[in-house]
Amino acid sequence: MLSDPSRKYRPFPQVNLPDRQWPSRTITQAPRWLSTDLRDGNQALIDPMGAEKKQRFFDLLVKVGIKEIEVGFPSAGATEFDFISGLVRTGRVPDDVMVQVLTQSRKDLIDTSFESLRGARAAIVHLYNAVSPAWRQIVFNMTMPEIKQIAIEGAKLLRDNAAAQPDTDWHFEYSPETFSTAELDFSLEVCSAVMDILKPTPDHPIIFNLPATVEAAMPNIYADQIEYFGRNIPNRDSVIISLHTHNDRGTGVAATELGLLAGADRVEGCLFGNGERTGNVDLVTVALNMYTQGLSPGLDFSDIDEVIKTVEYCNQLPVHPRHPYAGELVFTAFSGSHQDAIKKGFAAQAQRNDELWQVPYLPIDPADLGQSYEAVIRVNSQSGKGGVAWVLEQDHGLKLPKKMQANFSSTVQELSDSTGRELTSTDIWESFEKRYHLKGDGRFRLIDFQESQSPKQQDERIFAGKIRIDGVEQSVSGRGNGLISSLANALESALGGQLDIIDYSEHAIGHGTDARAAAYVECRVGDGPVLFGVGISRDVATASVRAILSAANGA
Amino acid sequence: MLSDPSRKYRPFPQVNLPDRQWPSRTITQAPRWLSTDLRDGNQALIDPMGAEKKQRFFDLLVKVGIKEIEVGFPSAGATEFDFISGLVRTGRVPDDVMVQVLTQSRKDLIDTSFESLRGARAAIVHLYNAVSPAWRQIVFNMTMPEIKQIAIEGAKLLRDNAAAQPDTDWHFEYSPETFSTAELDFSLEVCSAVMDILKPTPDHPIIFNLPATVEAAMPNIYADQIEYFGRNIPNRDSVIISLHTHNDRGTGVAATELGLLAGADRVEGCLFGNGERTGNVDLVTVALNMYTQGLSPGLDFSDIDEVIKTVEYCNQLPVHPRHPYAGELVFTAFSGSHQDAIKKGFAAQAQRNDELWQVPYLPIDPADLGQSYEAVIRVNSQSGKGGVAWVLEQDHGLKLPKKMQANFSSTVQELSDSTGRELTSTDIWESFEKRYHLKGDGRFRLIDFQESQSPKQQDERIFAGKIRIDGVEQSVSGRGNGLISSLANALESALGGQLDIIDYSEHAIGHGTDARAAAYVECRVGDGPVLFGVGISRDVATASVRAILSAANGA
Repeated sequence: MLSDPSRKYRPFPQVNLPDRQWPSRTITQAPRWLSTDLRDGNQALIDPMGAEKKQRFFDLLVKVGIKEIEVGFPSAGATEFDFISGLVRTGRVPDDVMVQVLTQSRKDLIDTSFESLRGARAAIVHLYNAVSPAWRQIVFNMTMPEIKQIAIEGAKLLRDNAAAQPDTDWHFEYSPETFSTAELDFSLEVCSAVMDILKPTPDHPIIFNLPATVEAAMPNIYADQIEYFGRNIPNRDSVIISLHTHNDRGTGVAATELGLLAGADRVEGCLFGNGERTGNVDLVTVALNMYTQGLSPGLDFSDIDEVIKTVEYCNQLPVHPRHPYAGELVFTAFSGSHQDAIKKGFAAQAQRNDELWQVPYLPIDPADLGQSYEAVIRVNSQSGKGGVAWVLEQDHGLKLPKKMQANFSSTVQELSDSTGRELTSTDIWESFEKRYHLKGDGRFRLIDFQESQSPKQQDERIFAGKIRIDGVEQSVSGRGNGLISSLANALESALGGQLDIIDYSEHAIGHGTDARAAAYVECRVGDGPVLFGVGISRDVATASVRAILSAANGA
Repeated sequence: MLSDPSRKYRPFPQVNLPDRQWPSRTITQAPRWLSTDLRDGNQALIDPMGAEKKQRFFDLLVKVGIKEIEVGFPSAGATEFDFISGLVRTGRVPDDVMVQVLTQSRKDLIDTSFESLRGARAAIVHLYNAVSPAWRQIVFNMTMPEIKQIAIEGAKLLRDNAAAQPDTDWHFEYSPETFSTAELDFSLEVCSAVMDILKPTPDHPIIFNLPATVEAAMPNIYADQIEYFGRNIPNRDSVIISLHTHNDRGTGVAATELGLLAGADRVEGCLFGNGERTGNVDLVTVALNMYTQGLSPGLDFSDIDEVIKTVEYCNQLPVHPRHPYAGELVFTAFSGSHQDAIKKGFAAQAQRNDELWQVPYLPIDPADLGQSYEAVIRVNSQSGKGGVAWVLEQDHGLKLPKKMQANFSSTVQELSDSTGRELTSTDIWESFEKRYHLKGDGRFRLIDFQESQSPKQQDERIFAGKIRIDGVEQSVSGRGNGLISSLANALESALGGQLDIIDYSEHAIGHGTDARAAAYVECRVGDGPVLFGVGISRDVATASVRAILSAANGA
């Protein structure tokens, strides 16, 4: 019997906006970014950051290129206040970065907030109060006019405190908290009242931050709300519309992106989506998504491993293996068909003479995040031959012919089926060495050889070698029109039949004095099964001989 | 210097659909669900599941209520084939569940796929080939007609194999793989050609599954694509439109939801978003999001902990602490203002006489997922007084008066600032015991007392007690108009001043024979600071006496 709690919930109301414009728009530039990692993120940590971690996180945000950083809630306690005022007073805020602090609308808290920023070159004071019906009724037991009055009183305190510290370039942000679950016209009314007090101008706009404090609707509804707000707020040119989404429904990134289509100018969030409950929107994903739209986010994630390391250290929370752009598995391909397509994509990319990134299954170039290509292809029991060939090529320089790939992949398949785990490059190489007797462990092992022209016949070559056969060193010789055929003849009696060469190829591994040769042979003895062999040597001839003996070892 | 790889990427093209309808629509019913955990999910695991894990996962999916389950890629290897045919032949597929298998368009693979399903009551065979330009050009080096022909040939093989095993109720699914990055009209052309072969009817429709194989555009674009497809596919009533999104841009859930608005009927995905790279769309989130729209998903996640446990075991991948609905932190509140609002929300919920869920910061009732309320509120250095009061009430039954909450929260704040970690309920209780001397460790400790009416004056009460004061047991007595005032008088000389009671309250903890009383007192000695005390006892009078002595111990 299925449980059905659906009766406890009601559908989220639509926004009446039949002429909405955002679905036909595109994002054409990056927004202003505000990191609230040190505030909304920090307050949701099991173990909030101390001063050392906060400083490290702040430095990381600066390095990434974020220019607006919410550093805390100065009135929340001594740790918060001291960190913020220390940051400001010791000049650790770069000239092009503004710190932001959050405050509720109470005189003592606002006074403390301004006090914490004393001496700042520029700063944003962020005032908020919740405006939605549930909060008004359940949390505050207040009417709409009372709620609006809280915002007005707060705005007056911002104005007056700012006037009392005229050496700082003050900016103001007001959040009608719970905006996304509030009546749009009431949010507009409250924001307008705040604007009447703070008198923003196009040169010195006010930030109206419109939170989906709890994500309760589909992201298109949030976009409708943002477009409605932008159309109806007075003095739009004196207003920066800021988005602040959470991820309760798993659509925080989408809500932010659709909100940008709907006309927003600024995005608040946290790196990798830390924050209350399911987290704030992930700034890394929203930013890197800009690349796939052909836009620069204006943020630098070219060493994403360092960003991950610092954030995991400060938050003591992991980045998930499948986290967009950052998880350890997001640039990997285990599936054989995916691996095959990626290999072809890299090859086509190398051939084409443009910069445009177009590799199947890789929406972004891993190198743009400082990631290596080597890690992209990994081999498990679902992989098939493509991944194995890739690993042998990447890690050992071997370019196996197609049929030999298939031949070897059956060995790998058996191994992965029997181990039931991912195969490492070492697993694959050891399996390859064993399968093709690369360590001299088969019936035939080359000791030495020479190849010469027949003194009797000008187009005949003579192979004369010492080969350990079944543990006994023997001298063998044979004639043919080349090295391979003469060796084949030399082996005929030991093999009990004629060795027919079906296919042969050879290529260099590396270049210069370190270069080696890899030779591959496909052959059969009499009516026996097809055999594959491989030989590697600094000498091209020796590689060929080894390849033949490798195949003979499989007979 | 910021790196700027944006030149390597180009903007995703818009869909020309100015009269799109989906942004004004709502979702009014749950879709058909298909889990591809055992296929798309499994192939992307570091260590793919063996038979035991596959069976466990399959059983979980059935228990959750999923009726269409993609069980694998029968032609990929023996492990796959044996699991699938075993499942079918041993009758482990319930009558209302259909298994689905994936195959490329090759005769041997399709034959193997049908063979694996031999004896099934009903099953879905899922054929795919990639149709987008990048795949056509880079991976296959084929023209559009050649790509279309692959689909047609595959469809014919499905038709003929099905005819050869007439006892099974066959259903067909065709995926134009990489649909979201392909030309819409070409996908329509290929799907139409497949339909011409398979001749679906309204009673026996074909499933057209439209993958965002790699998520490359904003979710509104995917919705446009789905709406366009639905408007233009012939015989719409004989077609089930199925969504299959991945999460490369972090908007897989949104793309699926907007795709449902755009008219899709069915959703493919994995539990908790496992799958290639960033994963397939998370079926759990999409399903539970339905509740917040007042809809039943038709799936049962009422014991989500068991679902998490099984999936983590089978996938060997963690569910992230902030994963919507399932992460360990998603129903927690560390912030004091959040905690306060949640407490009020629970109280209002208890008072209201309807089922409607409306608790601030909790978009869904944790109980609907089998989660307890106790875990919701956790205390760190950012918490303030609300959370502490909640913990004391939840775990010890104490309902501290407001002013005492504030008094105690300063102690907790110091503790969390100094430890820099989350405080457990035990931490808070031990701190409470110490702060208010509940273990008899202060100057004053009650040994025994009696209270009686004055023989001389009818409205006078006499307190006579044995109290250990500064380590020495003493007999004290005092008179007053009641227990508390007579005790206050009895302590006057020991305290060096008159004890004035500012406020007093008492409540029961529990009920029946196990009930105890908790008494709280706010007082001061002479002009000294305000003191708070608490006393707990089975006897209401003893609780009061203890509360006074608790306060006196703080003098």
